[in-house]
Amino acid sequence: MSAREGRSNRRGRDARREARAVNQSRHIPYITRNIPVTNLVSDEALEIIEANADTILEEIGLEFREDPESLALWKSVGADVQGERVHFPKGLCQQLLKTAPAEFTQYARNPANNVQIGGNNTVLAPVYGPPFVHDLDKGRRYGTIKDFENFVKLAYMAPAMHHSGGTVCEPVDLPVNKRHFDMVYSHIKYSDKPFMGSVTAPERAQDSVDMASLVFGEEFVQNNCVMLNLINANSPMTYDATMLGALKTYAANNQACVVSPFILSGAMSPVSGAGTLSQLLAEAMAGCALTQIIKPGTPVIFGTFVSSISMQSGAPTFGTPESSLVLNGAAELSRRLNLPFRSGGSFTASKLPDAQAAYESAQTLLMTLLSGVNFSLHAAGWLEGGLCSSYEKFVMDIDQCAMMEVLARGIDVSENGQAMDAVREVGPGGHFLGCAHTQANFEDAFYRSRTADNNSVEQWQADGSKDTATRANAIWKQMLADYQAPALDQGIDDALQEFMAKRKASFADSNV
Amino acid sequence: MSAREGRSNRRGRDARREARAVNQSRHIPYITRNIPVTNLVSDEALEIIEANADTILEEIGLEFREDPESLALWKSVGADVQGERVHFPKGLCQQLLKTAPAEFTQYARNPANNVQIGGNNTVLAPVYGPPFVHDLDKGRRYGTIKDFENFVKLAYMAPAMHHSGGTVCEPVDLPVNKRHFDMVYSHIKYSDKPFMGSVTAPERAQDSVDMASLVFGEEFVQNNCVMLNLINANSPMTYDATMLGALKTYAANNQACVVSPFILSGAMSPVSGAGTLSQLLAEAMAGCALTQIIKPGTPVIFGTFVSSISMQSGAPTFGTPESSLVLNGAAELSRRLNLPFRSGGSFTASKLPDAQAAYESAQTLLMTLLSGVNFSLHAAGWLEGGLCSSYEKFVMDIDQCAMMEVLARGIDVSENGQAMDAVREVGPGGHFLGCAHTQANFEDAFYRSRTADNNSVEQWQADGSKDTATRANAIWKQMLADYQAPALDQGIDDALQEFMAKRKASFADSNV
Repeated sequence: MSAREGRSNRRGRDARREARAVNQSRHIPYITRNIPVTNLVSDEALEIIEANADTILEEIGLEFREDPESLALWKSVGADVQGERVHFPKGLCQQLLKTAPAEFTQYARNPANNVQIGGNNTVLAPVYGPPFVHDLDKGRRYGTIKDFENFVKLAYMAPAMHHSGGTVCEPVDLPVNKRHFDMVYSHIKYSDKPFMGSVTAPERAQDSVDMASLVFGEEFVQNNCVMLNLINANSPMTYDATMLGALKTYAANNQACVVSPFILSGAMSPVSGAGTLSQLLAEAMAGCALTQIIKPGTPVIFGTFVSSISMQSGAPTFGTPESSLVLNGAAELSRRLNLPFRSGGSFTASKLPDAQAAYESAQTLLMTLLSGVNFSLHAAGWLEGGLCSSYEKFVMDIDQCAMMEVLARGIDVSENGQAMDAVREVGPGGHFLGCAHTQANFEDAFYRSRTADNNSVEQWQADGSKDTATRANAIWKQMLADYQAPALDQGIDDALQEFMAKRKASFADSNV
Repeated sequence: MSAREGRSNRRGRDARREARAVNQSRHIPYITRNIPVTNLVSDEALEIIEANADTILEEIGLEFREDPESLALWKSVGADVQGERVHFPKGLCQQLLKTAPAEFTQYARNPANNVQIGGNNTVLAPVYGPPFVHDLDKGRRYGTIKDFENFVKLAYMAPAMHHSGGTVCEPVDLPVNKRHFDMVYSHIKYSDKPFMGSVTAPERAQDSVDMASLVFGEEFVQNNCVMLNLINANSPMTYDATMLGALKTYAANNQACVVSPFILSGAMSPVSGAGTLSQLLAEAMAGCALTQIIKPGTPVIFGTFVSSISMQSGAPTFGTPESSLVLNGAAELSRRLNLPFRSGGSFTASKLPDAQAAYESAQTLLMTLLSGVNFSLHAAGWLEGGLCSSYEKFVMDIDQCAMMEVLARGIDVSENGQAMDAVREVGPGGHFLGCAHTQANFEDAFYRSRTADNNSVEQWQADGSKDTATRANAIWKQMLADYQAPALDQGIDDALQEFMAKRKASFADSNV
């Protein structure tokens, strides 16, 4: 292991290289996969699952609760509506989905950060929804708008985060019915990457659209996607008024809904992969199809959030082989519908950024990339089954996300990639470190992890015997210290502030 | 998250279930993959790599050092031998490899533990080679024969370890020239799973064969594979006398060599994936072909150990996207040669069983399974770039290995797997926990992790706020406390002891 020796006198050089590597990290707006998708489920199995989804839609039907407008829309296209239960004639949803684009652009206020959703592209976004935050210094606590801003800043600084996301944590210090203003504003003000809108009420969705219009212009918004919006089905086989209200508002404004059955297998779906896939396919097809009734051609994403529960305790579990198979099968089902697909992330049930957190996250993230997921929420920062946004986990995850981009490049078989000149130069028993090819490819040869410690144990001890989370703690603090806000036109900023002030003043605070 | 509530009063039940789940864990001698292999490298790219490997073999050649016998063997089949450099006529190695079996059985002293090497099968074995061991109580220290026995016992007790492996750690407390006796004996005595022989000298290889003959019978050994044996190429493009001596001994005795180029890209091969693949293919083909000259038809495994080095420090790195791509491409190259393939494992450069260790291990292990690896060393216990066998990491890894078996089953589309009765019974807005299908599939529905904590944060705190490694520490101690040795025929045991005593007395201790 001679390569391990004499490292101590290289620390200065390491530090300079590290600094350079970080400054250097080239801008990639999103991942384009040069590797084929991994399909673990056979076509025969997928056909059985699709037939069962048709049966669910036609015989069992789905419920659209407390939303007569949605029921009327379904009636208008020939569905059989009994009370709140909708039965779908065979093929109706597939027919409606033909107008949905297979691929579309979500625009960012910085065009260099526009993302392409669909096809061979993978867009990674931060954790969404946790009411709590966690770091090694202050432990677990409720999220605040300050934490929200911090995670927006961290995602802005991370080349591997292609998207600013949505509810990176719940700013619990703000009233429920007004926090959406500050969340949307934070994404616009502290980042110039694409972001997500509020879905907790139709009027909050409209506020999101109105704020986006102040940034992009009303006409542009009506004709282009500038927000993704997370619409969860209330599995099994139910959509509620809140989600439907947001879906209708965004679809009518040409903004893309990410229609996602939220399923914990065993509780909200059968304890089997095939059963879960049939149910989520029926749910996703109906929800996605509804956007096309409202506005044919409006972009929509086939979404899936699937995990299992512990049959001992009922607790959600993550990074399990069963959910990996469902993720992979759902990706294939959405490709067969020619729709962009959302799923995956860096999930874990762990309460700490420890080994369990990493095993579970890596299992899910690698399957996310290999399965050809187009948009992945929760790719960084997720902890404790989604109840916590973790600062250290965020830093560890973005390192893994960056590695996924390198994996997606595949094997380079250009002349330089073949490197036969190097093999000839070095020959049997030689050493490649000094050869011309190595020198020429030195800088970009291998991905450089920021969180991993690959040094000798002696060097690692000299550096303080730190574990990964402790190193990550120093990194996120440095990132926030180095943060510089992207320029925002003062006129736009003023208009946003004025809009928020007026709207906030127009109704009383409330926590529902 | 109602599923998270009222857990505290379930702890007794959890404990009983946990106990049951562990006792229950069904015996699986090895993984048979029902999912297709994942190929990330195109056929066109593989053809370029194969052509370059032919060029390396023919134009550059390989060196077989300080072993005239090997040079003579190559001469006898028409290779061009110049000094220690062997140039191979185009197609010679491929021609010789036609006699090697695509799949073979390695026999264990307990026939229920025989493993099938090749085809759709994956056999997982423990870490191989570390001079140090690590646990949370005593930290990092040199390995001893006691540690060696402990890891053999842990692998014996782990359903997900299909193989007892070889040098699970170096018993540094025993003389180098005699420790192989105690290592082979420990595998036979404390486990009844298949194991590996000594390769550090030809006579130690012969001792291994002789000891195996006392267990299986001489004739059986000469006609069947009862040992795998790790033969590393001295990359680049070199085989040394020690490895060649062991290879010749085992091949002559019909025991399978795992011929593995040991490559850290950037040092022992080019800094590119395609260059590394071409070189390792040339090295592996020549080494595997040599076994067929010695004994046509003897089983042999196309092996690969590949990682990269940090271009900042020269230190080995693990779980990187570059090495994942090479692993995947090498698997495909070996399938194209119709040879069983060895690679992968649960690698990490981390000095602790922490998040880095888990991220890096999971990235490699999942790629190992998806790539269709047939035999994987280092699947459990590897730490610190292979310098340490970790007790806690071993326990965490076997949990991941068990999940790989579940993943390999794929999606079940039987009537029961489709679960349409459950969907019909529950319907929109219902709950699957109580339905007939869930009750019927309750016990085996989902894999039950032993190391993960999926409980609520309150329950986790009540349990002591332990991280994963701390939980793993308790588990390996419990496993060793519960260990019961498999029966070994007293006559065989006596014969082994007598053989070792005689041989040990016949030459002086030495540490080379």
